[in-house]
Amino acid sequence: MKLSEIIAILEIKIISESGIDQDMKIHRINSLKDGKKGELSLFENEKYKTDLLNSNISVILVREKHLELIPKNIIKLISKNPYVDMAKLSKFFAINDQIKTDSENYIKAKIGENVEIAETVYIGSGVVIGDNTKIRAGTYIGDNSVIGNDSLILPNVTIYHSTIIGNHVIIHSGAVIGSDGFGFATNEFSEHFKIYHNGNVIIGDNVEIGANTTIDRAVFGNTYIRNGVKIDNLVQVGHNCDIGENSLLVAQSGIAGSTRLGRNVVMGGQSGSVGHIEIAPFTIISGKGGVTKSIKTSGKIWSGYPLFQHNDWLKLQAIISRLLDKS
Amino acid sequence: MKLSEIIAILEIKIISESGIDQDMKIHRINSLKDGKKGELSLFENEKYKTDLLNSNISVILVREKHLELIPKNIIKLISKNPYVDMAKLSKFFAINDQIKTDSENYIKAKIGENVEIAETVYIGSGVVIGDNTKIRAGTYIGDNSVIGNDSLILPNVTIYHSTIIGNHVIIHSGAVIGSDGFGFATNEFSEHFKIYHNGNVIIGDNVEIGANTTIDRAVFGNTYIRNGVKIDNLVQVGHNCDIGENSLLVAQSGIAGSTRLGRNVVMGGQSGSVGHIEIAPFTIISGKGGVTKSIKTSGKIWSGYPLFQHNDWLKLQAIISRLLDKS
Amino acid sequence: MKLSEIIAILEIKIISESGIDQDMKIHRINSLKDGKKGELSLFENEKYKTDLLNSNISVILVREKHLELIPKNIIKLISKNPYVDMAKLSKFFAINDQIKTDSENYIKAKIGENVEIAETVYIGSGVVIGDNTKIRAGTYIGDNSVIGNDSLILPNVTIYHSTIIGNHVIIHSGAVIGSDGFGFATNEFSEHFKIYHNGNVIIGDNVEIGANTTIDRAVFGNTYIRNGVKIDNLVQVGHNCDIGENSLLVAQSGIAGSTRLGRNVVMGGQSGSVGHIEIAPFTIISGKGGVTKSIKTSGKIWSGYPLFQHNDWLKLQAIISRLLDKS
Repeated sequence: MKLSEIIAILEIKIISESGIDQDMKIHRINSLKDGKKGELSLFENEKYKTDLLNSNISVILVREKHLELIPKNIIKLISKNPYVDMAKLSKFFAINDQIKTDSENYIKAKIGENVEIAETVYIGSGVVIGDNTKIRAGTYIGDNSVIGNDSLILPNVTIYHSTIIGNHVIIHSGAVIGSDGFGFATNEFSEHFKIYHNGNVIIGDNVEIGANTTIDRAVFGNTYIRNGVKIDNLVQVGHNCDIGENSLLVAQSGIAGSTRLGRNVVMGGQSGSVGHIEIAPFTIISGKGGVTKSIKTSGKIWSGYPLFQHNDWLKLQAIISRLLDKS
Repeated sequence: MKLSEIIAILEIKIISESGIDQDMKIHRINSLKDGKKGELSLFENEKYKTDLLNSNISVILVREKHLELIPKNIIKLISKNPYVDMAKLSKFFAINDQIKTDSENYIKAKIGENVEIAETVYIGSGVVIGDNTKIRAGTYIGDNSVIGNDSLILPNVTIYHSTIIGNHVIIHSGAVIGSDGFGFATNEFSEHFKIYHNGNVIIGDNVEIGANTTIDRAVFGNTYIRNGVKIDNLVQVGHNCDIGENSLLVAQSGIAGSTRLGRNVVMGGQSGSVGHIEIAPFTIISGKGGVTKSIKTSGKIWSGYPLFQHNDWLKLQAIISRLLDKS
Repeated sequence: MKLSEIIAILEIKIISESGIDQDMKIHRINSLKDGKKGELSLFENEKYKTDLLNSNISVILVREKHLELIPKNIIKLISKNPYVDMAKLSKFFAINDQIKTDSENYIKAKIGENVEIAETVYIGSGVVIGDNTKIRAGTYIGDNSVIGNDSLILPNVTIYHSTIIGNHVIIHSGAVIGSDGFGFATNEFSEHFKIYHNGNVIIGDNVEIGANTTIDRAVFGNTYIRNGVKIDNLVQVGHNCDIGENSLLVAQSGIAGSTRLGRNVVMGGQSGSVGHIEIAPFTIISGKGGVTKSIKTSGKIWSGYPLFQHNDWLKLQAIISRLLDKS
């Protein structure tokens, strides 16, 4: 997409101290941190000043009041709401969810040896499937997805485009891998604009994913399910999460976007975590527990909502229960 | 269905002060409020006396003890358990979930221009699909459902019969729209009788529905998802709910039957609401919050279960936490 | 599988006081309680001493320190981690999830009269379907599963192999019946080994199962959903659970493995129960309630987490709320 087209779509003012080539091609929207030459990002929050100074981004959406914070070599697009403008633009950068079979971009799938694929399975353009993998009826494998060796994808699973799945993986029926994250920008009329998600999901080796579990794709970059992770039924993993090796996510637990679990974390049944935090390795969150801030010490058990260390929670519940006797 | 057949099925006594034509046709079971001539309803709870007096219903199931409350012009069927008898009858009024392809009632779908429909998609009788809409593999569109323009229905979605979906709608994989509500009548032996759901689901424009989310059809009337609503993964919306414009339902939240959300309500992750209440516009329910009664003031944040205004909840949690120090 | 092969796989020492035939065939892994001649089990927990003494098992995995507890007639395999070794073995005893259509073991399905089966339905080897049953598009019926008469299986349901379903059953879209339970054995490096689940799910008559609900198969034996049970959407029922007659499981509730509900139990929305407990008949668990130990008295209402009798919980919440006024 040309810079001139972006300016036209957003009806926006442009500032550059180093001259502007409006025919310049913008290849991608990206985060400040990962952004490269020829890519566009936004600056909205002063918390990300360091990312800004180290960024290789070419073009940035920015409020007038933040203009002076932006390094000279970055082209500035002055926006009344950089987040909403980025959402509006993201639609134009969205990867199509599916290449048409009759399109010239369509690439035939590469299927390994000794693979079983049921008749009603949909295999998208550019899919790669390793040896000995079995894909049962009604399953959908989106464009450019890769599945390793010796994996078993049970019936009626949906794997969106560009998903990468390792070896010895089991995915149970009804699971959805790579659906769009829940990300919207809201304007002054309280209307929500979809942020198109062009990242993906990467699943390691020896992972098992339960029935009707959902794992969202990243907005930029990747959602990671590391080697040896076991996920139960009806679990939600948000966009850009990183689930550490050998972690266990018990049924109906949920992890909001961009949260990182260390290795061997256990999330109990119906427990949950807010987004954008870290949970230390070998942490155990009891059933129904709610995590609202990062857990920095490894190997502890936490319970309740708000969260306490398990022994404190037990003690506290005993104290609370005695209030009843006193009444 | 003839009145005489209803009497025979329920083995029930009939009373009418205005003469009875047992050949009279009963077209539908309906609520007292919306009931029309030729329809049947029930009276069980004195709370609905005003609805009763204003009702245009022709026939009513009623306990002997409530007989005198019923207006003269309504035909009375005396029932030991009006709710159970209504459930038993509802089976006979149920709309078939699917018209057979070889039936003479089968109507070919009307498909717009530039529509993509995958091979394994099921399109029922009388379906209408607007221009530029894409329907991916394994999706099911039940009889008489309507989908607007520029919508994207991802793989393995199920849309039950008579569902109405607007323009620019995205429905993610595994979502189920229009399944029967969880409604049963229980007899004196604690057995549950299904109340067949003949209402539907109506989804507005610019709505997005997450993976494996479920939205139940109304028992009578409609379940509404208004314009601009965004629903995350694994959310439950009960029968006859009305989700106001631009509301956000975060992952694993649930709303029980007949609850009405004003515009721009946010239900946090794993939060829930009981049925038959109203939540005021611009209300925010924090993650894991539980709503048990109507919220009448707009624009406030609520947390916890039981629910407190957010600041009070924070204060209260601090007080509770100090109990631990004192012990 | 021969005993000699098991010894080779596990690289394990064998002890028998009654002579060993290493060509002896081991037919199955089973629990101590249900184990029969020619089957293998494990002993790990002294809690199960009585089961051990009454067991008809032929071979047992056991730690050296427990050796003297094992009856003489049982062949002992000395294991450093009997649970992990059992998990490793379970893979070899796993029932294949699907017999190939061209295999000589493939048995054509037996379909009753007046049955409707959509084109895209997958019907496995040895499936039996009763009269008047309807199976909608995209549904999968695994090998050797049996469905009774007058049942309705809606679109995109997945029924794994060996499931038994009664008469007059309704299963809504996206439900998954018979997926593997969440059972793993963990070794000294905190790696998890899958315990293959060879049990099944048995569903009685007049059961209704909601959209996107998941019911796991038993590891050994059966998961039971008894007659007249009604299950709402997005509910999780763990492996080896037994849900008593006419129980109601409301949306997003979850029951962990091996828990037994008496008849007419109600689990409110978003409520949960730990595994391996019993809940007495006619118990009601309020919405969001968390059950952590067996409930032995019938017919009571319980609320909160931790759980209190409902009236106590209300009183307690009032007391807690007053703490706020005092502050």
